[in-house]
Amino acid sequence: MSDYPNFRFDITHQDSDTRARLGVLHTPHGSLETPNFIFCATKAAIKAGGPRDLEEIQADIILSNTYHLMLQPTAEIVEKMGGLHKFIGWDKPMFTDSGGFQIFSLGHGSVAEEVKGTRNTERNKTLLKITEKGAEFRAYTNGEKHLLTPERSIDIQRRLGADLIVAFDECTPFHVDKDYTARSMHMTHRWAERSLAEFDRGNNGAQAMYGIVQGGVYEDLRREAAEYISSRPFFAHAVGGSLGADKAQMYDVVSFTMQYLSPERPVHLLGIGGVDDIWEGVSQGIDTFDCVSPTRIARHGWALVRWGKKYRLNLRNSRFRDDPEPLDPECDCSTCKTYSRAYLHHLFKAGEFQGMHLLTVHNMRFMTRLLQTIRQAIKDNRFTEARREWFSV
Amino acid sequence: MSDYPNFRFDITHQDSDTRARLGVLHTPHGSLETPNFIFCATKAAIKAGGPRDLEEIQADIILSNTYHLMLQPTAEIVEKMGGLHKFIGWDKPMFTDSGGFQIFSLGHGSVAEEVKGTRNTERNKTLLKITEKGAEFRAYTNGEKHLLTPERSIDIQRRLGADLIVAFDECTPFHVDKDYTARSMHMTHRWAERSLAEFDRGNNGAQAMYGIVQGGVYEDLRREAAEYISSRPFFAHAVGGSLGADKAQMYDVVSFTMQYLSPERPVHLLGIGGVDDIWEGVSQGIDTFDCVSPTRIARHGWALVRWGKKYRLNLRNSRFRDDPEPLDPECDCSTCKTYSRAYLHHLFKAGEFQGMHLLTVHNMRFMTRLLQTIRQAIKDNRFTEARREWFSV
Repeated sequence: MSDYPNFRFDITHQDSDTRARLGVLHTPHGSLETPNFIFCATKAAIKAGGPRDLEEIQADIILSNTYHLMLQPTAEIVEKMGGLHKFIGWDKPMFTDSGGFQIFSLGHGSVAEEVKGTRNTERNKTLLKITEKGAEFRAYTNGEKHLLTPERSIDIQRRLGADLIVAFDECTPFHVDKDYTARSMHMTHRWAERSLAEFDRGNNGAQAMYGIVQGGVYEDLRREAAEYISSRPFFAHAVGGSLGADKAQMYDVVSFTMQYLSPERPVHLLGIGGVDDIWEGVSQGIDTFDCVSPTRIARHGWALVRWGKKYRLNLRNSRFRDDPEPLDPECDCSTCKTYSRAYLHHLFKAGEFQGMHLLTVHNMRFMTRLLQTIRQAIKDNRFTEARREWFSV
Repeated sequence: MSDYPNFRFDITHQDSDTRARLGVLHTPHGSLETPNFIFCATKAAIKAGGPRDLEEIQADIILSNTYHLMLQPTAEIVEKMGGLHKFIGWDKPMFTDSGGFQIFSLGHGSVAEEVKGTRNTERNKTLLKITEKGAEFRAYTNGEKHLLTPERSIDIQRRLGADLIVAFDECTPFHVDKDYTARSMHMTHRWAERSLAEFDRGNNGAQAMYGIVQGGVYEDLRREAAEYISSRPFFAHAVGGSLGADKAQMYDVVSFTMQYLSPERPVHLLGIGGVDDIWEGVSQGIDTFDCVSPTRIARHGWALVRWGKKYRLNLRNSRFRDDPEPLDPECDCSTCKTYSRAYLHHLFKAGEFQGMHLLTVHNMRFMTRLLQTIRQAIKDNRFTEARREWFSV
């Protein structure tokens, strides 16, 4: 029986209108308030970020990806160097995923687009074979063959040493039929058992494990998966796999999945970080989110702002070339406090890396401010009102 | 007569063995001790640097390049945005060059290699015509024709608003004969007069101007140039142009040039920043240096260290893959205080930008520490001894 002596999740406030809730997630590397956002340090570094940024923007938790790190620098080297926290120089809570998502979706072009169903491509070319044993794939780095099994995924995540780890699953994309989704989900449940067994074998109290709910867009399968994963001794749950073709379907899938998940455990929504998706997810009871989007769009010149189209502003646009205003007058980040839009525009035009860096800082701060606003609203019993206000600009 | 009411250079200590000297250079944006190193923010940003780095590494002064900024974002936009200091978010002393160096050397491949004579290529392809009036060239950004004259260079530098600016010159490369070098030098002197006239026309006390000594590797020409520039009302001097084919010749050129420069004015050695070159330059009486090398090599994985071959360590080398030691145990920068060599190696292997950033921080701090060591040694009357010690590792 899996045991998490150094972890606890306290629900401190429940919204009266919605499923939104305030919580505190305790880990050996400190506690974080939920709802919260997990920033992606995919290869053990925030892309285009700097060493002091996470502190400045008040990040509470970051994640790294098992798939990338098992190939470079390898779990064994991270372990030898004292684990991910020490390697990265981050002493707050950390999360690693199981590697499944990347293995099953790389090769589809944009991973997120495929899983979200907005792109129709053939099956992953670096994925060689899926069997009951695990997934065989070729490394994107050098073409070497690898086999990732539930046991190996948990072993890697143990060596990496994040506080929060994830059971190994098959992440089914949108473009597979219900029959495939059902068979895959049942294998994910068998893999969940193997993940739990491997977790128990090495459990020293330093880590807690999330079980992943699959089942695609099918309500009956999601219910079966949610009930099954809830019945097993996971510390928390993650909602994964395809959430549908559009936002409406995603909200539906999340909504009917959440009904069957054990309400006292934390729930993470994998790979979702759109501003409206976060408000909706919180209203459905989601506790944590992660997404590469805030940092990825920063590298392409997009700043997150409340009033922009799709909450974004393109700093490459020539209308900013002589705009002396701060990027976002509402924001307290060092980018907004120090620089003009004209300067940011110049950096992107000139191909200076610092443009990507400064927008990365802003977009990350935008996310922590958004989640702070959401938590405060729940605390103040005005979540629904705050949500309406947020969008009324 | 050019007048610099808000600038002053005080020589506070003279070494007894060498021409090395300690000074304080006062500008409207504060004072800096010399000898010192000027970091290159070529396009108004330290490449791969972050906004808080300059403060951390205790930089005293930075420079930007007229050539790059006149094309993007343009001097007019920087002026409209309140000048370079405000644009960049830097309130300490700043320097801009005249644009000549880049116009006359871009297109040769590596600018520095050509001017230093280590590369033999044909004449610049973006440079269209040099006449008494000025230099006609095509913008590297969009191919547009531009004419840069002494008047325009000073006008641009005035709009940019750095504290320390430079007269417009023709920067002669190594592979031209003495006759060309002599004729070019005389034109540079006529351009110096035009630069002074334009400077005086708009002088509001906010800037001080450097005159550039040309003359190639020829002692008689360098003497003529040094005496001429010293006789004109420049605030300071800069030694430019070709310094020869190797370090021995460079040291000779600097040595015989320095004899004829007015000793009470600050002297800048343009584009030189090798560790041994700095010790030698200081011993010859040079007060400031600039070079892209510390930040450029960082982006290629090279860290400056005292004990390495050519004072460098290549973090891409696989021997660092599981090295838990800090990059440089002697260094107090955040990179060395926080991360292992294994982590830095990983970041370069993984293609993570943060590797470039962390080495940039370290290399910049290495330079400020080097110059601090040199100043302390002069203060303590042990420059020659300290120089010997520095290299005895």
